[in-house]
Amino acid sequence: MNDFLAACRGLPHERVPVWFMRQAGRALPEYRARRGAGSILDAIRQPDLAAELTLQPVRRYGVDAAVLYSDIVVPVAAIGFGVDIEPGTGPVVAQPFRSRDDLSRLRNLDPSTDTPYVLDTVAKVRAELPEDVTLIGFAGAPFTVASYLIEGRPSRTYGATKAMMLGDPDLFHALLDRLADLAIASLRSQVEHGAGAVQVFDSWAGALSPAHYRAHVLPASRKVFDALRDFDIPRIHFGVDTGELLPSFADAGADVIGVDWRTPLSLARTRVGGRALQGNLDPAVCLAPWPVVAREVRAVLDDNDGHPAHVFNLGHGVLPETDPTILERVVELVHREGRVRAA
Amino acid sequence: MNDFLAACRGLPHERVPVWFMRQAGRALPEYRARRGAGSILDAIRQPDLAAELTLQPVRRYGVDAAVLYSDIVVPVAAIGFGVDIEPGTGPVVAQPFRSRDDLSRLRNLDPSTDTPYVLDTVAKVRAELPEDVTLIGFAGAPFTVASYLIEGRPSRTYGATKAMMLGDPDLFHALLDRLADLAIASLRSQVEHGAGAVQVFDSWAGALSPAHYRAHVLPASRKVFDALRDFDIPRIHFGVDTGELLPSFADAGADVIGVDWRTPLSLARTRVGGRALQGNLDPAVCLAPWPVVAREVRAVLDDNDGHPAHVFNLGHGVLPETDPTILERVVELVHREGRVRAA
Repeated sequence: MNDFLAACRGLPHERVPVWFMRQAGRALPEYRARRGAGSILDAIRQPDLAAELTLQPVRRYGVDAAVLYSDIVVPVAAIGFGVDIEPGTGPVVAQPFRSRDDLSRLRNLDPSTDTPYVLDTVAKVRAELPEDVTLIGFAGAPFTVASYLIEGRPSRTYGATKAMMLGDPDLFHALLDRLADLAIASLRSQVEHGAGAVQVFDSWAGALSPAHYRAHVLPASRKVFDALRDFDIPRIHFGVDTGELLPSFADAGADVIGVDWRTPLSLARTRVGGRALQGNLDPAVCLAPWPVVAREVRAVLDDNDGHPAHVFNLGHGVLPETDPTILERVVELVHREGRVRAA
Repeated sequence: MNDFLAACRGLPHERVPVWFMRQAGRALPEYRARRGAGSILDAIRQPDLAAELTLQPVRRYGVDAAVLYSDIVVPVAAIGFGVDIEPGTGPVVAQPFRSRDDLSRLRNLDPSTDTPYVLDTVAKVRAELPEDVTLIGFAGAPFTVASYLIEGRPSRTYGATKAMMLGDPDLFHALLDRLADLAIASLRSQVEHGAGAVQVFDSWAGALSPAHYRAHVLPASRKVFDALRDFDIPRIHFGVDTGELLPSFADAGADVIGVDWRTPLSLARTRVGGRALQGNLDPAVCLAPWPVVAREVRAVLDDNDGHPAHVFNLGHGVLPETDPTILERVVELVHREGRVRAA
């Protein structure tokens, strides 16, 4: 068992493992050289390219985990909901989800025929990845995917999403349940082809009050995590702005809870009922000079105080303007100084 | 003393007071009819218009407080920093704040010559407002104003702001101190012309970790609140995503702390050291049908459980797509059912 898997389980290991959300991305010159223009969905549909982009940061940074180069709208796009990703904007939906009739546009996913390129990418990455590096599979959580389908484009307020959630909860729950099934089918197929962990991105769940999250979102997220329990792999649950939602995230059943920089790890740990934590350096810290970054990395390690159930990461994705040599040094520092205390 | 002032002080009163952030705004047809196109800064510079826009929601909703129709960049724009507000985008700065030389672009504010229109508006509103309705003065907190000056446009990540905060803290502190002086001059002049309370908008402070907030932002915000202590008026401190920052907000010295919907009032109250609370209905709730809105308003009142130190408000500004008749009913419901328990 490598350090990453041990940390996800809170089992004894020596060195704190580290990877970065969006480590495969524009911060890397080799990414910009290979990626080209055009929609990320086109890149994801090319297994040689997607595998290469997944592997680049592992080679460059020496991180303990690779994360599949993907996007949370891949399954809904694959079944023809009509989603594209505009560079500089994000997911846009030509005909947003508006009524019960739209449920019929969300048929089940058959990964072998709908997203064969994802499975090819997973297999290619697994074949090329060093044995002790875990490949993390990737899916969007039902709420966050639903927010894109309902809003039609990225939103800051999620007004239409919340209006449907509160005004027509039956329809909203049916939508989230359908999206849970899509996430389950996608994640199971990724694990079957070589992913050794999964991360479920509920990036925008932090826009909800705890009461609304529990009533309208938790059941669908729990369904996703329950449906992966038979695999012996860590399940990671990620969101931002989730300080008050951490107890509910723990109830959703993941093994590892992502925490952004707003909540210190030591405080987060009091809210997650024994789950492992992943985080939580502010990605913007990596735009500062190295001595500052080093101090801030040490502050995260110190705050965690050697607890074994900790995967070092940023609190959100790598910012595109980040100097990759800074991230190289972060990995080196975490590996050199991040020590797990004995139980 | 009216209910609003009593609630800000935690003093006995019967009825829970209520107002709405951005109550003077696009949700109102009478606002759209009067406001016209063009920059909000142009509207703010016309006292008759700005006073009318400030008064409209008081007439329409019967709220307990008016909030000056203004914007957080008014003082920096008035001293010629080169800020405008693009409709649909927000504040844009032609030459962003980049280095120590830029400090000289931030001279002191003389409200009587730099922003006479603000003082005229305050006086006009005060003259027309019912005696028992408080006028709330308005300023941006140093961090949030600084984020616009540094980024040059609205940001989701505040990367440049945080990079300066961490990479050149002396410069960052000098900038925030200068902006504190501007806020102080503006707020003092508003109070002297008739504002009976002030709200300091630190809308984006919630993007910071508690440690960064305390080290780099708290001193400047505390300076603002300290400099208003000699007035016998409530000082309100507002931000979003501030769950973990609430103890620090309390340390900054305001009398009332704004809370968004992410943190239940009962939980927030354990973090603010006896300060009064303002909030915290999710503005998106007001897009749902009335029975849902009524249930959610009651949930906020129930969670507060009749504590006297509570001003009912939304957790952030009114969304432009809100039906104003819903807000009328919210006020009516809070006034009818919101009862303060005896001490």
